[in-house]
Amino acid sequence: MAELVEIADAGDPRLADYRDLRDVQLRKHLEAEHGLFLAEGEKVVRRAVEGGFPVRSFLMAPRWLDGLADVLATTDAPCYVLSEALAEEVTGFHVHRGALASLVRRPLPPVAEVIAGARSVLVLEDIVDHTNVGAIFRSGAALGFDAALIAPRCADPLYRRSIKVGMGAVFSLPWTRLPDWHDALPTLSDAGFTTVALTLADDAVPIEEAVAGLDKVALVLGSEGHGLSPRWEQSADRRAVIPMKAGIDSLNVAAASAVACYVTARR
Amino acid sequence: MAELVEIADAGDPRLADYRDLRDVQLRKHLEAEHGLFLAEGEKVVRRAVEGGFPVRSFLMAPRWLDGLADVLATTDAPCYVLSEALAEEVTGFHVHRGALASLVRRPLPPVAEVIAGARSVLVLEDIVDHTNVGAIFRSGAALGFDAALIAPRCADPLYRRSIKVGMGAVFSLPWTRLPDWHDALPTLSDAGFTTVALTLADDAVPIEEAVAGLDKVALVLGSEGHGLSPRWEQSADRRAVIPMKAGIDSLNVAAASAVACYVTARR
Repeated sequence: MAELVEIADAGDPRLADYRDLRDVQLRKHLEAEHGLFLAEGEKVVRRAVEGGFPVRSFLMAPRWLDGLADVLATTDAPCYVLSEALAEEVTGFHVHRGALASLVRRPLPPVAEVIAGARSVLVLEDIVDHTNVGAIFRSGAALGFDAALIAPRCADPLYRRSIKVGMGAVFSLPWTRLPDWHDALPTLSDAGFTTVALTLADDAVPIEEAVAGLDKVALVLGSEGHGLSPRWEQSADRRAVIPMKAGIDSLNVAAASAVACYVTARR
Repeated sequence: MAELVEIADAGDPRLADYRDLRDVQLRKHLEAEHGLFLAEGEKVVRRAVEGGFPVRSFLMAPRWLDGLADVLATTDAPCYVLSEALAEEVTGFHVHRGALASLVRRPLPPVAEVIAGARSVLVLEDIVDHTNVGAIFRSGAALGFDAALIAPRCADPLYRRSIKVGMGAVFSLPWTRLPDWHDALPTLSDAGFTTVALTLADDAVPIEEAVAGLDKVALVLGSEGHGLSPRWEQSADRRAVIPMKAGIDSLNVAAASAVACYVTARR
């Protein structure tokens, strides 16, 4: 059973994991240095703990204790209990969904382990926005993808905002970070996947056509801004596009990935 | 040619249209009362002006003047020129994309005018989040929908955030607000549309099956939280679902609407 620790001072050093949650740069350093990540909201906290991540601590206002009693019962980690005003002072924002947990990151599995047995794999190059990473993981998991691989510079799927937008899909969808950017796609081809890059390139064919009849597929998505790198675009086995009305800006990456996942999963 | 007016004081009363842009409640009242809306960013400002909305004024830092010179040339409205620090003081946030414009809302067209000749129409019930409204308009426009109708309580498509996320799709996609909530869907059925409600209801069929072979379709989307009202769910001609993997939270509304628009547009 988690030990309930009442907190009366926002400066309490035991709350270090929860400081300044809106300061992305500070959080990146702090979380990497301490090997931790934060889960926010009752449902997501529950999924993180059920996903087997060791808990460093919880932080919540008293009214969230009952709903998470069964989760708190599974660990000896401290649970810091404080007023919502104090929680806001520590974290720097109003914690709408009440509960927070700080959990221990685990070593990422090797690529071979993540793709073993997978038939549909998402591959994200340099997605910059954490909410897009979360949205893509959620769409992939919901629509039947088996795993996700992310490029060395893709935004962190375990960042608080990614997890929250993804509703914890990052805990259920097997994933890892690719160690090598340059040969990432040829390596997947060698492993039996047809790599299909979503792009507006001239030789792109409609996505339904690109994936029709394929067995193992790796669906490759690029950055929100400039799309895929030339290297990835050219080293993919196929280039595919979502047919769109002329004169309209392309879909945003979350919408495009949802459509592409849907079509690919139903190939 | 717009008259360039240099501003040296954040309290200048001529900047009233641009105050406190992050205060949603205040903005709703101010914009309704004065019949205005704001466009943000060079591309979106340009599209609003090209869309024929009369300009009340522009507000921007000097470095944005050149890029918008052709747009400024089309109107006699004042263009308030000020430092970025002063712009931030007025608006309450850092204006990443530089230019803002305040434009005049036009009377919304009658429903009959908006749906005349349309084959695929989006119908939004009570979408609460402005970014979702923008994302749905953008997906609909990109994937070939002809028009959008929004329920009396749906969030405002001309709110700054809706426009920005939608990349100005609200200026190109014909739309209006439905005057009547209760009989909105039967009225569309009477006009020859098959109304297809996206829902997790027990009798929902896969979306591809629901729209197959249909001529005029109205695709009906509900609120982010609780989905469609029982009245709309039951008064739709058909109920449809995006097939998803068991145990995963449903797609978020922007992802689900992109998939549903894609499938419906290709029926």
